[in-house]
Amino acid sequence: MIEFQCDYAEGAHPKILERLVETNMDQTPGYGLDPYCDEARRLIRKACGREDIDVQFLVGGTQTNTTIICTALRPYQGVLTAASGHINVHESGAIEATGHKVLALPCDHAGKITAEQIKAAYEAHMNDGSSEHMVQPGMVYISNPTENGTIYYKQELEAISHVCHECGMPLFLDGARLGYGLMAADNDVTLEDIARLCDVFYIGGTKVGALFGEAVVITNPAISKDFRYMIKQRGGMLAKGRLLGIQFQTLFEDGLYWQISRHAIDMAMKLKKAFQACGYGFYVENSTNQQLPVLPDAVLEKLAGKYSYSFWEKTDESHSAVRFCTSWATKEENVDALIADLNQIRSQMM
Amino acid sequence: MIEFQCDYAEGAHPKILERLVETNMDQTPGYGLDPYCDEARRLIRKACGREDIDVQFLVGGTQTNTTIICTALRPYQGVLTAASGHINVHESGAIEATGHKVLALPCDHAGKITAEQIKAAYEAHMNDGSSEHMVQPGMVYISNPTENGTIYYKQELEAISHVCHECGMPLFLDGARLGYGLMAADNDVTLEDIARLCDVFYIGGTKVGALFGEAVVITNPAISKDFRYMIKQRGGMLAKGRLLGIQFQTLFEDGLYWQISRHAIDMAMKLKKAFQACGYGFYVENSTNQQLPVLPDAVLEKLAGKYSYSFWEKTDESHSAVRFCTSWATKEENVDALIADLNQIRSQMM
Amino acid sequence: MIEFQCDYAEGAHPKILERLVETNMDQTPGYGLDPYCDEARRLIRKACGREDIDVQFLVGGTQTNTTIICTALRPYQGVLTAASGHINVHESGAIEATGHKVLALPCDHAGKITAEQIKAAYEAHMNDGSSEHMVQPGMVYISNPTENGTIYYKQELEAISHVCHECGMPLFLDGARLGYGLMAADNDVTLEDIARLCDVFYIGGTKVGALFGEAVVITNPAISKDFRYMIKQRGGMLAKGRLLGIQFQTLFEDGLYWQISRHAIDMAMKLKKAFQACGYGFYVENSTNQQLPVLPDAVLEKLAGKYSYSFWEKTDESHSAVRFCTSWATKEENVDALIADLNQIRSQMM
Amino acid sequence: MIEFQCDYAEGAHPKILERLVETNMDQTPGYGLDPYCDEARRLIRKACGREDIDVQFLVGGTQTNTTIICTALRPYQGVLTAASGHINVHESGAIEATGHKVLALPCDHAGKITAEQIKAAYEAHMNDGSSEHMVQPGMVYISNPTENGTIYYKQELEAISHVCHECGMPLFLDGARLGYGLMAADNDVTLEDIARLCDVFYIGGTKVGALFGEAVVITNPAISKDFRYMIKQRGGMLAKGRLLGIQFQTLFEDGLYWQISRHAIDMAMKLKKAFQACGYGFYVENSTNQQLPVLPDAVLEKLAGKYSYSFWEKTDESHSAVRFCTSWATKEENVDALIADLNQIRSQMM
Repeated sequence: MIEFQCDYAEGAHPKILERLVETNMDQTPGYGLDPYCDEARRLIRKACGREDIDVQFLVGGTQTNTTIICTALRPYQGVLTAASGHINVHESGAIEATGHKVLALPCDHAGKITAEQIKAAYEAHMNDGSSEHMVQPGMVYISNPTENGTIYYKQELEAISHVCHECGMPLFLDGARLGYGLMAADNDVTLEDIARLCDVFYIGGTKVGALFGEAVVITNPAISKDFRYMIKQRGGMLAKGRLLGIQFQTLFEDGLYWQISRHAIDMAMKLKKAFQACGYGFYVENSTNQQLPVLPDAVLEKLAGKYSYSFWEKTDESHSAVRFCTSWATKEENVDALIADLNQIRSQMM
Repeated sequence: MIEFQCDYAEGAHPKILERLVETNMDQTPGYGLDPYCDEARRLIRKACGREDIDVQFLVGGTQTNTTIICTALRPYQGVLTAASGHINVHESGAIEATGHKVLALPCDHAGKITAEQIKAAYEAHMNDGSSEHMVQPGMVYISNPTENGTIYYKQELEAISHVCHECGMPLFLDGARLGYGLMAADNDVTLEDIARLCDVFYIGGTKVGALFGEAVVITNPAISKDFRYMIKQRGGMLAKGRLLGIQFQTLFEDGLYWQISRHAIDMAMKLKKAFQACGYGFYVENSTNQQLPVLPDAVLEKLAGKYSYSFWEKTDESHSAVRFCTSWATKEENVDALIADLNQIRSQMM
Repeated sequence: MIEFQCDYAEGAHPKILERLVETNMDQTPGYGLDPYCDEARRLIRKACGREDIDVQFLVGGTQTNTTIICTALRPYQGVLTAASGHINVHESGAIEATGHKVLALPCDHAGKITAEQIKAAYEAHMNDGSSEHMVQPGMVYISNPTENGTIYYKQELEAISHVCHECGMPLFLDGARLGYGLMAADNDVTLEDIARLCDVFYIGGTKVGALFGEAVVITNPAISKDFRYMIKQRGGMLAKGRLLGIQFQTLFEDGLYWQISRHAIDMAMKLKKAFQACGYGFYVENSTNQQLPVLPDAVLEKLAGKYSYSFWEKTDESHSAVRFCTSWATKEENVDALIADLNQIRSQMM
Repeated sequence: MIEFQCDYAEGAHPKILERLVETNMDQTPGYGLDPYCDEARRLIRKACGREDIDVQFLVGGTQTNTTIICTALRPYQGVLTAASGHINVHESGAIEATGHKVLALPCDHAGKITAEQIKAAYEAHMNDGSSEHMVQPGMVYISNPTENGTIYYKQELEAISHVCHECGMPLFLDGARLGYGLMAADNDVTLEDIARLCDVFYIGGTKVGALFGEAVVITNPAISKDFRYMIKQRGGMLAKGRLLGIQFQTLFEDGLYWQISRHAIDMAMKLKKAFQACGYGFYVENSTNQQLPVLPDAVLEKLAGKYSYSFWEKTDESHSAVRFCTSWATKEENVDALIADLNQIRSQMM
């Protein structure tokens, strides 16, 4: 089986394993207070073009989202998100388990929300005569790329950031696949932009070359204050914290993070073109590593057993939207094999 | 600096790194549903001598304790523990953050609780006329070895288990250092015993040879039911779950877990004898990898800068209880160096 | 100002005050363990036609909803409700504050959900390959009458109850306005039916004649078990619990609850006919004490200052849906005055 | 049975019932936004000698403690209290259910804590090298009078307040029996003092003349901000909020609250002298409405069936500490009857 189901099917970039082997018997303090973490923090601050930011390392995405959101919100506040946001659908109620409502805004297949929607939701709440009977919007969560592979453009992000600050709501960007977003051909946002526009965001490692790990960047001191207590309480403080430091140090030395992200995009675009060439449409078009073609079920049947993918939804009686993921680890030969099979199936069916 | 401060100063046993390197580019499903995890489960079930038990892998100890306890308790219940229990002092309120009171029972330096204490606490609650105004004891937590390195003997564990079942309270054993307990010279408990006597326990990897990871063994189906939802919600479901499977597979093939545990004990006993030979007493005597001598502050001053240890507490004006940890990774040459220095300091001071 | 804004603008039915005055200096045990509560429990059991049910008294609706729901759910479960359900919109996130997601099902202006929707939601969850990444539906919440004054008919309720039991999800009916529902002309459901079909429900006192208070009826022993711990923990255990007993005893002796509910319905129907006679439509038509006409804003302007009502939403540029509530306390002269004014305004505007 | 078991055995002061009857059919807005609440707020502000304070009304003590504490704390903080504090023992884990650890400080039978203890606990936390692994003290809770009837003197309160502000921890005073404390003969604290020294406190109504209700006084704007959202979310926002306004208005017009508090003290002191005259000692001596004599079990047997009291604890084989409560409602004839019986039993036993 060749896996296109997700972007975490393999281990880590070989350079990371090398560094783990090299440093294995070094003795360091635990809990992220070691020199590797310090160096990784320095590299990430540098990549963000800011010295005055807090960088913390957590193990996984759900944990990271939960820790950040429950740190930022007051007990009676909720977090605004696209209805398709990961925190709303795929985290088993982790946010609610911290006591907060996820305030879902409607969105189309792009899975994005707009500054206008955020402002409208905030004002609708504040202008309601019985606002204290309702959950107060207290933070905005966006994922970039989104769960459907689309990205926020600079103008959109600027507008959202502006509204958030106007309304006193911190902006949190979930960058579980940040590398794949920033390396997209049509992306016009830099890491510096994100650090400037967001109160907190994270640079995903799990899906972009690391064994695991997310680097949280906090630019808002109110969220940074005592954040390590929150990490510990939420179960995210790795005893051997250096494992996170070593991985992010490796990813941010010499631009490895961006190089391997670019590879995933190249593979995805090759695949996208093949779907297009076959005449297949998309659930939503995007330029990142998650491609969501709408395929005839007959084609999917023929791919089954040889290639894995994720099922998204039935679009009509004989078609389904599915997701093919590439990643830093995707082998071009596998993409080529899939394309060859797609073309062959296509020609057989005509 | 030679570290004796904790048992998680290094990376992982080299065999684990080898296996991670070997399997790195294999493609597997995520979230612990891969063949490595399955094989690790099989090996652990075998080591426990039971086929009918659930084995789940989590990343760290606080996360594991929290997930298990909040799975087992009803909202109005709390968990009984020794006052010195990890969940009561060193987890930043993680248990309370899930809504449950930690019900601390008094204990001496050994950090153990007894069947009698548990029964008394339960009966005191149940016989109180206003019991519904108080937190109902709903689970018992013990750590073995304890936070002070002592161990529970078979008779003690049998008695605790008996009381727990009598009172309808599941028994949970935190085995963050389980290997170091079971390999102690005076230990009379087997892994099979623990599986028979506990409703749920875990076999610690983080402190015993793994990069990270705790293998949870659940013998009580009421706790096992839907446990994976809880792992996910509490942020413990590693995307690349195979990392846990590969590690525990390596540790439980050919008894590696027990061999490396034994090494830590050997090193600790060598150190213990040296402290004894110098005439130093102990905060509490034990036979595991955490040695808690009471040393003259003058001696500690001379060790400073060359050896790290943990400060426990001042015992009088000129002495302090401290902790020296050995582990699977402790080099005998470092233990020898410390002993030589201890002896030299001792002779200088006489 | 004549209040039609809500059904809790006045104190209590005079008979309740009389009883409070009469019993004022009696000495009783606290926390609902007094003879008045016992007698009220007996009367409510009798009205439900069942001896084997648990009756508990709480102070208010949000508290009651929260206590019941967090008693019934496991930590990873959520509660299914109509999107317009009180727990989803008007309780400041009280359910989420106990750690549970509110799983909102779409509904039209009637604010009702169907057995089919419930079954589909449950099956969609259970059949999803990654169900453990999502919140498990664990209970169904319906309000009867709904927040928009509509009621569930017997066939609907039977079907919902059937699906709930099939799926192992307890059915909870919020009866904050239960009297107004059961006294509606088109209602075909009895209190016995509700006790038979629901796992738990409550008979609202606050909006139906009492100063405050909700009588929770629990037919499912799993929810009843240790429920008083939950009441205490959630802050709902009134020290002078007899106040609740005295009130419900008064309401359920001689059918007072039903008589005063009937009065509210009579007043509402008189008002409804007047709106209809004026040619006004309704946001949704119903037969209970909350009437939701769609009125010209010009009419509303003329009513302002003399009559209070609740704003529901703008329906077009010149019309708004509003709510006029009657209650046990509504004076017919006030209804007549409003009708006269409506007619006069109407004739002026023609 | 003549009840001395608690101070909430009767209804309300007759003047309160009169006012409820008089105002019963007035129509008012709900949720504490009515003119009665406004007037009660004005009277309480006046009694506190401050215009710049927020006054909010809640229904009961557990609810009030929970709402205040979870408003004031950050998620990783806990609340310092005497081990015998109500929040630590008799609220079914309500504080923990909001996610916060109750940090119990040891105390003797007086049930008080000192400024020194508070400071030491705070500094021990802050100076610990692994403080982020432990719960941060974030608020101080004291009850005045305490659960054992003792009171804080001005100097003690000043010192505690000073330390709290020094450490940045809000001071919260639980005044469930505040009237009985301030009317004690040896009390040297005024309501103005309390308003000056505390960040938040409440004036108990439930135990001092009201049917129910606690008036929360907030002097710290950080706690006041959005506090009504918290009241609603925690289930404490009474629909007919005016019931609280009417009661506190009645209690604070013409000093009724203080007069009836004084009566309870007079009755308690009469009883205390009788115990002393009989030669009985006390669990702890105090000057308020809860008297805790240590009586021979043989005496208690003779009182049983005629008088109710609360059992505190066995003090030796043949004696028990018990609690006799007086209240605003205690009839002097009942106190006299008890004293006569005590004297008679005493003389029989000599």
